[in-house]
Amino acid sequence: MPSSRWTTWAWMLLLSGCAMGWPKQSSSATSDIRNCTTSPPFLPPTVTDTSAQLNALRQRMQFYNISAYIVPATDAHMSEYIAERDARLAWISGFTGSAGTGVVTTKKAALWTDSRYWTQAERQMDCNWELQKIVWTDSIGEWLLQEIPAGENIGLDPFLFSIDLWNSYAHVLQGSSRTLVPIEDNLVDLVWGTQRPPSPTSKIYLLPETFTGSTWQEKVSGIRSQMEKHSRSPTAVVLSALEETAWLFNLRGDDISYNPVFFSYALLTTSDISLFVDRNRLSTEALQSLSAQCPGPLCVQVEEYDQVQASVQAYAQGDVRVWIGTEYTTYGLYGVIPQDKLVESSYSPVMTTKAVKNAKEQTLLRAAHVRDAVAVIQYLLWLEKNVPKGLVDEFSGARYVDKLRREKEHCRGASFETISASGLNAALAHYSPSNVSSRKLSMDEMYLSDSGGQYLDGTTDITRTVHWGEPTPFQKEAYTRVLMGNIDLARLVFPSETSGRVVEAFARRALWEVGLNYGHGTGHGIGNFLSVHEWPVGFQSNNMPLVKGMFTSIEPGYYQEGEFGIRIEDVALVVEAQTKIQYLNTYYETIRQRVGPELQRRQLEEEYEWLRRNTQPFSRGTLVAASLGTLAITSLVSTLLPDRQA
Amino acid sequence: MPSSRWTTWAWMLLLSGCAMGWPKQSSSATSDIRNCTTSPPFLPPTVTDTSAQLNALRQRMQFYNISAYIVPATDAHMSEYIAERDARLAWISGFTGSAGTGVVTTKKAALWTDSRYWTQAERQMDCNWELQKIVWTDSIGEWLLQEIPAGENIGLDPFLFSIDLWNSYAHVLQGSSRTLVPIEDNLVDLVWGTQRPPSPTSKIYLLPETFTGSTWQEKVSGIRSQMEKHSRSPTAVVLSALEETAWLFNLRGDDISYNPVFFSYALLTTSDISLFVDRNRLSTEALQSLSAQCPGPLCVQVEEYDQVQASVQAYAQGDVRVWIGTEYTTYGLYGVIPQDKLVESSYSPVMTTKAVKNAKEQTLLRAAHVRDAVAVIQYLLWLEKNVPKGLVDEFSGARYVDKLRREKEHCRGASFETISASGLNAALAHYSPSNVSSRKLSMDEMYLSDSGGQYLDGTTDITRTVHWGEPTPFQKEAYTRVLMGNIDLARLVFPSETSGRVVEAFARRALWEVGLNYGHGTGHGIGNFLSVHEWPVGFQSNNMPLVKGMFTSIEPGYYQEGEFGIRIEDVALVVEAQTKIQYLNTYYETIRQRVGPELQRRQLEEEYEWLRRNTQPFSRGTLVAASLGTLAITSLVSTLLPDRQA
Repeated sequence: MPSSRWTTWAWMLLLSGCAMGWPKQSSSATSDIRNCTTSPPFLPPTVTDTSAQLNALRQRMQFYNISAYIVPATDAHMSEYIAERDARLAWISGFTGSAGTGVVTTKKAALWTDSRYWTQAERQMDCNWELQKIVWTDSIGEWLLQEIPAGENIGLDPFLFSIDLWNSYAHVLQGSSRTLVPIEDNLVDLVWGTQRPPSPTSKIYLLPETFTGSTWQEKVSGIRSQMEKHSRSPTAVVLSALEETAWLFNLRGDDISYNPVFFSYALLTTSDISLFVDRNRLSTEALQSLSAQCPGPLCVQVEEYDQVQASVQAYAQGDVRVWIGTEYTTYGLYGVIPQDKLVESSYSPVMTTKAVKNAKEQTLLRAAHVRDAVAVIQYLLWLEKNVPKGLVDEFSGARYVDKLRREKEHCRGASFETISASGLNAALAHYSPSNVSSRKLSMDEMYLSDSGGQYLDGTTDITRTVHWGEPTPFQKEAYTRVLMGNIDLARLVFPSETSGRVVEAFARRALWEVGLNYGHGTGHGIGNFLSVHEWPVGFQSNNMPLVKGMFTSIEPGYYQEGEFGIRIEDVALVVEAQTKIQYLNTYYETIRQRVGPELQRRQLEEEYEWLRRNTQPFSRGTLVAASLGTLAITSLVSTLLPDRQA
Repeated sequence: MPSSRWTTWAWMLLLSGCAMGWPKQSSSATSDIRNCTTSPPFLPPTVTDTSAQLNALRQRMQFYNISAYIVPATDAHMSEYIAERDARLAWISGFTGSAGTGVVTTKKAALWTDSRYWTQAERQMDCNWELQKIVWTDSIGEWLLQEIPAGENIGLDPFLFSIDLWNSYAHVLQGSSRTLVPIEDNLVDLVWGTQRPPSPTSKIYLLPETFTGSTWQEKVSGIRSQMEKHSRSPTAVVLSALEETAWLFNLRGDDISYNPVFFSYALLTTSDISLFVDRNRLSTEALQSLSAQCPGPLCVQVEEYDQVQASVQAYAQGDVRVWIGTEYTTYGLYGVIPQDKLVESSYSPVMTTKAVKNAKEQTLLRAAHVRDAVAVIQYLLWLEKNVPKGLVDEFSGARYVDKLRREKEHCRGASFETISASGLNAALAHYSPSNVSSRKLSMDEMYLSDSGGQYLDGTTDITRTVHWGEPTPFQKEAYTRVLMGNIDLARLVFPSETSGRVVEAFARRALWEVGLNYGHGTGHGIGNFLSVHEWPVGFQSNNMPLVKGMFTSIEPGYYQEGEFGIRIEDVALVVEAQTKIQYLNTYYETIRQRVGPELQRRQLEEEYEWLRRNTQPFSRGTLVAASLGTLAITSLVSTLLPDRQA
């Protein structure tokens, strides 16, 4: 599935001064489905009336003396998928897409979202809301400057903005005499009141050792050793992404659909460990595991979830240095740590360690993909038999592939809402059918299926695009070029620690050649029974450089509005490549090791020297990448065949 | 010529949070030529004794209460090439390479430079200086943290650090209790005293209209119109790069070798223009041109060069907003503008406008390249005849190609010191021969020639690598793959506004495939009788996205230490590409325009509708890049052949 994260990333990119490689969205590509100029306005029946919510919010805004309030689509952990109780933007605007930013002023309300969601936004928002299509923070900033007079305040919940995004807003408004005001009471929550869904109460459980790469104690020791080696010698790491605590402690929950995580923070110091979570939700085994080595440096103290800010603030009073990941730690947490005690990096060491799967994690993730492939093959065969009979629609197809997965060993459901799109629906990259509107699959149209599963050993994600009749020449050309892009990137050999962004264009070149392109990212990391879009692996500027042991999806596509959509997605593993030069050097080394001692034993000094001279390794010294190894991406299918290892 | 800029850029990149694509240099690749452990130390005869300089500098440091002083290799305009009087690092350390940073503490002195210059540094520095090979700001910061106790101060000349680089140092030292102290008196200059070379006095002249793309008045109006359209409505732009003032006012000088620029700043406001320069140096024509429209908004006030800080500070007292380019404006200038009056972007509008050559500038630059190609062909033929006779060495070759260029119309000398390197010398990417050490060219070795000219109409830069005998199979393979990289990037079709960094790997893929790579940038912009490395065009993260009208070098290479070096460099122009899909759409549009009216005139309504239906453009709407055009890079040679336009 293409990453929904790209718009958020893009904002940060632009403001960190990196040149953008993204094709820009044309804001005039479609005209609004809604007509707000007639009286009464013409609106689709799917819109939500937001007048009451907006009125109530504006009253609160007046009380706090702010002229605008920014409502993002994320939660306090910068989660991509959020729980119902965090769906503040959906509640205030009606728009339920996963990426977007709302701004409410005393007179207006506007929503920014990217092209994937324009149609959906127009179908869901009433005339209180205008749709804005240029999603950079700059664009939101310019709109604010236009709407808000100088001297007035713009309010934000500091727990819903990462440090980097907060700084982006601050940068855009810099010197404009409009002030960003952090308000710790979330104004939407105040208005939402008792109607807001409650906190989850389900059990948080221990992932059995069979399914973990290391014990949580080993993971903690590894992180502490990274803290020691760091030049600034941080004394603590704050973990605020939900994937971080789930991975580190080998715990799972079900607080967010499709994502087996639970609401929590952690403060890992050189001597102590605090996990901020609702203690009552921890299973007996989980509690036992966390407290097995108490007291001591491997004893986990469980503290209340809401205590995290106070605890971090108290800790930061001491002679300490606190390591945080600025890409996803919120401005609210950041603000309680004195500037001179911060050790900042884009990602915490937990995030960067999790990104590189160890041998056992690789084995687990591969095994999950084999079972998942069985489900997908069963589905494709079933489609081949049933589509010609006219028996399948998008929704029944999606339900069927979900069922096939659920039957597989260790499966715990889908890893995201199944995308099942026929004909023109597939041109919307994130289309999901429902039982009220579902197109029938036919031999005359292309069909795109993008789905994945959560298995105890790994998370999966795969897209196939098929046609059971005769595609048009243009469809064939586009499909071939999408496939070329997938293959070109999957076969690439590159130096270790190359940034994904540097190699991403190999997935686009074949399309570019004929003037085509696609408007989403090329791939994303994936977890071991964690997120389907796992940070920070991928092909964008703020992703980590690629090293062996990382898994990433590769998913170029092409979308012809109103006609069809194509995407071909596999999950690939970065492996060490045996290049031609490396092969020669290995060969030479073998000769030296096997024949050299024999020559020496026979005291054939001249022959021995001759051998040394003629088996000198190529590229010594200047092959700068040699010490780091040369890597290749290999799709899981080929790594499953041991003799095809690239 | 590969850009020397890359280390400086790299520092900024790392700190702006972008993942690095650069292969890391191994710091243990070579051992030091010097032996500082013996008594007396073993030193090459080429080293400079720096004891006296360092003693004097340390006395000044004591007076200013600083424990370390940082000496960069640049000037107050962040110039890549500098004048003798700005060669502070060379004077204090002995090292004359173009990229490096020196740090002097009370006890130690260390120099950071990249792999191109390691050997040179060891040959030039005495045992007072240690060589550091990891050039990131982080590495300098870590060294400082190790050497300087907490509570002490680190001094810098705020006019020798860009805002971005200053912030990088501040970030590295953040929370460490070491303070960065800006000292406006340059301590090296104080010690250098009367021995320091004087300010230039040569004439600053007007570039004849034949050689300019527009009048300076047209350029000024264009910049003012960009100021008006900017959402923050800046009231002024500060120009601090020497290329900016030279380009904007169509003036040239010769203050820096190989670069026809002159020391100056400018403050361009909505109503006034100030040029900060030594008035006596302006030619009569230059003065006339600048004052022809006085008084008025197109009247240039000439103020003293040294007045810039005071003038900008005075201007910034008003109700103004000052636009600056943070990549190259110094911290010293930045510091006098109140934070809320700053409008920051990576590059000023002068920089970004200059990067895109208009039709006349393109014609001029192409014409210069044709004359330059004649000189290069003459040289290659001469080599072919004279190398086999044993008559040519690296230095005589360099002198000969320089002479061939100087004979050409409009030539004003070389655009950089000619690189002429035979055999193992070519493995040093920036090797230049001298008359004391020059290797004889032979039929048994590869020879690399990288040279360029300054012509009144354009600046050139070209590299050819040749072998007059029989190259080894490995040399053939490496050469072929370097050439493949050059061709693959030159033939690439890509969406407009794609970042160079995203496409750069096409120049490396063929090398990567066999485990090879090169450790320098892939290309750089080039000027119209300006810098051979013209910002901000190129293939790195902080370069501008590629649009048509930009010129860039394409120069992959391969360097086998101790054996040979290969680089193939052309200058290419970004042009609009005629892609297959675009071709079809153009064809359809032609049919509609030519046949459509005829059908309408004959009232063949149904046929007319049929035609419309069957000539609908492909990719409307979803081809997101379409509105921006699809581009290709084309080498100048192919653009010179009108029928081969890509």
